[in-house]
Amino acid sequence: MARPRNFDEHKVLRTARDQFWSTGYAATRVDDIAAATGLGKGSLYGAFGDKHQLFLRTFDDYCAGLVVAVRDQLEGPDDTALERLRAHVLTVADSTAADVCHRGCLLAKGTAELSAQDPAVVETARKTFSAIHELLAACIAGAQRAGDLKKDTDPAQLAGVVLAVLRGVEALGKGGSSPEALRAIADTALALLPAP
Amino acid sequence: MARPRNFDEHKVLRTARDQFWSTGYAATRVDDIAAATGLGKGSLYGAFGDKHQLFLRTFDDYCAGLVVAVRDQLEGPDDTALERLRAHVLTVADSTAADVCHRGCLLAKGTAELSAQDPAVVETARKTFSAIHELLAACIAGAQRAGDLKKDTDPAQLAGVVLAVLRGVEALGKGGSSPEALRAIADTALALLPAP
Repeated sequence: MARPRNFDEHKVLRTARDQFWSTGYAATRVDDIAAATGLGKGSLYGAFGDKHQLFLRTFDDYCAGLVVAVRDQLEGPDDTALERLRAHVLTVADSTAADVCHRGCLLAKGTAELSAQDPAVVETARKTFSAIHELLAACIAGAQRAGDLKKDTDPAQLAGVVLAVLRGVEALGKGGSSPEALRAIADTALALLPAP
Repeated sequence: MARPRNFDEHKVLRTARDQFWSTGYAATRVDDIAAATGLGKGSLYGAFGDKHQLFLRTFDDYCAGLVVAVRDQLEGPDDTALERLRAHVLTVADSTAADVCHRGCLLAKGTAELSAQDPAVVETARKTFSAIHELLAACIAGAQRAGDLKKDTDPAQLAGVVLAVLRGVEALGKGGSSPEALRAIADTALALLPAP
């Protein structure tokens, strides 16, 4: 029988995630994570593998959580679909603006740092973007069925633009754009969606 | 009289930039740059300061070059402004798609890695985004004056959305989105700009 782990795995992973999130993958040492979690390096390696495996675990968990959060915001009945879409886009703009330390989204940060050398990171990012794209498309299709958006444009194509705007807002926020500028982008993008 | 430098400063900076671009700031050692440039570490330090100063120099140069390239693509007479805007947006999508190693844009990569801890990087990113935003707004205003876009929306607001789409396309491309998906986002975003 395997010896039960005498630490809270979820808490350790969250602490490791925050460390990677703040300082990036390369600049984070396993020593830093060990210190932050209070675990020995041996316990960390035993439980989660090496630094790369630990990063991938926290990155995958983060991305999975992101998709769940977006699903919670976007899924629902057709007659309030446009309202939910609007709320989601404005929430992303406002929460990006509220990130005063410019840490940004871990999906964006991890992908930017590692996409050139880490196919596993690219694959997780691709799946995450694809899942969010589908949720946006379904929400837009709902708004079209409800008669709140014009039906002449493919919901998947509109969803692609909305996804790009959201990821762009994230990038601009990290680059020091003002809360007002981010809010204006969100508002203007929503206003450009073809009205019925 | 200062001793003349016996190396091509421009070439050294380009090599250093490529090293940072490929492996990121934290993972790049001055030793790597010294090896890639064929210079000793002492010469590098003497000419460009420490690793952080060398990075900022390459980052600033890259961003300045980016603004010049965007200006070259966007500035011109009103009657072809919409054409230039369209060409620019499609070029960004296609060149992002062509970046098969998912290295992305150094502005995005440097900002993602360092924005949380490096105010100088955030400031350069902010100025760069702001300059590109102004160029986009001027081009959109030209297209409006020429009667190729509807005049009822503030060009600066439309430019904000186009800038977000462009930065989003960059982020999605790094995350493994297909060339067709990136092209579709660019096409759809352009089609959403209010026609006259």
